[in-house]
Amino acid sequence: MSGLVLDTSLAQAFLEQGTLGQERERAGAFYRELIEAPDTAGVKGWVSCEEAAVQLDLMREKGAEIREKADVFVLVGVGGSNQAARAVVESIQPRYNGAPEILYAGNTFSPYEIGRILDATAGRSVYINVIAKNFETLEPGSHFRVLRQRMQERYTREEMARRVVLTGTYGSRLEEIAQENGYTFLSFPERIGGRYSAFSPVGLLPLAAMGLDMDAYLEGGRQMQERLRAEGGGIAAEYAAVRSLLYQKGFDIEMLVSFEPRLRWFSRWWWQLFGESEGKQKKGIFPASAIYSEDLHSIGQYMQDGRRNLIESFLTVEDPGASVRIAPDPAFGDRFDYLDGMDFAQINRAAEDATIRAHAEGGVPCIRLTTGRLDEYAFGQLYYFFMAACAVSGRLLGVDPFDQEGVEAYKRLMFRTLGKPGV
Amino acid sequence: MSGLVLDTSLAQAFLEQGTLGQERERAGAFYRELIEAPDTAGVKGWVSCEEAAVQLDLMREKGAEIREKADVFVLVGVGGSNQAARAVVESIQPRYNGAPEILYAGNTFSPYEIGRILDATAGRSVYINVIAKNFETLEPGSHFRVLRQRMQERYTREEMARRVVLTGTYGSRLEEIAQENGYTFLSFPERIGGRYSAFSPVGLLPLAAMGLDMDAYLEGGRQMQERLRAEGGGIAAEYAAVRSLLYQKGFDIEMLVSFEPRLRWFSRWWWQLFGESEGKQKKGIFPASAIYSEDLHSIGQYMQDGRRNLIESFLTVEDPGASVRIAPDPAFGDRFDYLDGMDFAQINRAAEDATIRAHAEGGVPCIRLTTGRLDEYAFGQLYYFFMAACAVSGRLLGVDPFDQEGVEAYKRLMFRTLGKPGV
Repeated sequence: MSGLVLDTSLAQAFLEQGTLGQERERAGAFYRELIEAPDTAGVKGWVSCEEAAVQLDLMREKGAEIREKADVFVLVGVGGSNQAARAVVESIQPRYNGAPEILYAGNTFSPYEIGRILDATAGRSVYINVIAKNFETLEPGSHFRVLRQRMQERYTREEMARRVVLTGTYGSRLEEIAQENGYTFLSFPERIGGRYSAFSPVGLLPLAAMGLDMDAYLEGGRQMQERLRAEGGGIAAEYAAVRSLLYQKGFDIEMLVSFEPRLRWFSRWWWQLFGESEGKQKKGIFPASAIYSEDLHSIGQYMQDGRRNLIESFLTVEDPGASVRIAPDPAFGDRFDYLDGMDFAQINRAAEDATIRAHAEGGVPCIRLTTGRLDEYAFGQLYYFFMAACAVSGRLLGVDPFDQEGVEAYKRLMFRTLGKPGV
Repeated sequence: MSGLVLDTSLAQAFLEQGTLGQERERAGAFYRELIEAPDTAGVKGWVSCEEAAVQLDLMREKGAEIREKADVFVLVGVGGSNQAARAVVESIQPRYNGAPEILYAGNTFSPYEIGRILDATAGRSVYINVIAKNFETLEPGSHFRVLRQRMQERYTREEMARRVVLTGTYGSRLEEIAQENGYTFLSFPERIGGRYSAFSPVGLLPLAAMGLDMDAYLEGGRQMQERLRAEGGGIAAEYAAVRSLLYQKGFDIEMLVSFEPRLRWFSRWWWQLFGESEGKQKKGIFPASAIYSEDLHSIGQYMQDGRRNLIESFLTVEDPGASVRIAPDPAFGDRFDYLDGMDFAQINRAAEDATIRAHAEGGVPCIRLTTGRLDEYAFGQLYYFFMAACAVSGRLLGVDPFDQEGVEAYKRLMFRTLGKPGV
């Protein structure tokens, strides 16, 4: 149960003397406002994990049923409605411990992809969880219909009632649908936006369904919540302050990188969190991500020698949770004998340390966030840390980290083309 | 066999009157130099598809054997040694037509990932293709050893000789290893860099092994080669000229986006091509990518309202190669009845057209490249188009699009830590 460690020393070298203390003060003040001021805008339901994590017993029960009876669990959601759960599931890969296969639907209009998902459910025991705060979003809405119709060909009304879980806001059409059909209904709390929903039923039910440890995950979140509170914003305020100062100095792209490929989906959660919270009013650090060492062979050249407007944030995993050692093979003569007896974990760490040093020397402010292992507890910590940091960071930038007005523009045009009533 | 269509009109609106003609001239001149000037630096072996595509009969034969006898085909390569083939395979998904499972190895040091790959080969018929131009690269070198040792526990020397294909340069240690062990050896032509190797055996053998149509793919490349030659650089010079002018005006991030999730791996090939070719001398457009509509729920807000330094290049697929229609369900009352009877292809296109319009109106220069279907022929066209465009684009930027000195910095430090002799 080790804690996250943040090291900003290599980035501080790019800042003017004395500026960090001041910015850290500002960040701390925004943090205190976040946790203390009344929630007049109705967006801070996530600040307390305890408040977000409702209906735990119901989810434990339903999760156990899905874990036991489903061959395939279809998570129907897009953006904030699936990213957090997906990142944990794809990192821990519970399927290799006998959990159901998980399919992600409700996140595309490609008929090719939808066909693939429908094919993968054929003839298998299917459970679905449809997650939609605003049940007007096209992708989950249309996929729910298509999947439901397929399931109704095979299951009775009673069987459907067991197999469908809807997650939405109280009072929404989704809740009515659950009541009319006897489906299980879970709360997407009104005061929690999609990208801040990791500790609500949005992020929790899929974990329970895949047999993951919801309690350890929540404990990680709560532990970080307490730690930040005790430290006046602590590492979250520090991360926010450092990137704010770097942005003011013209560093306007942040790459989140990791040497652990299992974190690929975590980067996508982070990408949404920061992109959608800060990319407004013609400002904001542009978020991007890479998985090293593979992507050193793609974007490494740019990181080392391209435009010097890059921040690089390393997510380091101390304990990879596996060991593969390189056995000698002297007779073969592959010229890699200097690796004899080494574990890949050791090589991976050498590559990571070399990369940080080379990129920092090349003019990239590097930040390092280290976690022990990639388990449920660690993800709880990571999610709370980044959500708190992002909320503070948006305020330092002078934008509202909880809105996303910009995504309405294309939707209006699209709805008009599709003939949606009232648009 | 339709051709690619490039539409830069929405981006041209961001350029000064008259500048495009001039930049297009410069691009055309660089294009002619590319195809006409002697290859003194030894980097233009890819410019003629005919020159790159050697050993076709051997690959057809070996590919058919792998297709027939392998349960698992392991492609061991990193960066330019696997991206092109991976993008085609992951788009066309031949496994659903009975091809072997393909695993990608030689691209990580994570012991967790390597363990997963080793587990996936256990007890199954395994063939491997190790691709390494410079057989000093750690990832493929170390994975080749580990995989080879596992295979040797099960296969005789004669059986190993059938199951291992090595792709490297003539005269390299890899060629000697092939000779000493009776493995099949394929050429990684000396005058072709990794990211330009799509039409060499590097890109071809994996297609043949997965039962894909190598000839249609090469025909696509050749057709584009001829077309660009006939048009003095044609759409490749136009794309290069437009992005060069945009870069000069401060647009320094390019997002390659597509509404077809199957193109996820193609974006990664493109990412390496441009990132590694242009990110040097502290300049270059920063490449990034997204898959819409899913990522509109992540990065869409930033694209619409964030910093106005973004170029957005849409890769449009006219024919999705599938059809899923939305059947009415009036009694259920899900409020999506306005979609009744529509095909998802139609919705996807409406979303794409709305997005281009909304983002362009929001201040993003949008470029659109349209292809008919996602088949082997189309990928041949896309690869040749982008490689030619990138070679010209690097010259417009004033950098060498064929080197990648920047990737040596971290390697030196890493090799020193690992005790590599002579470093």
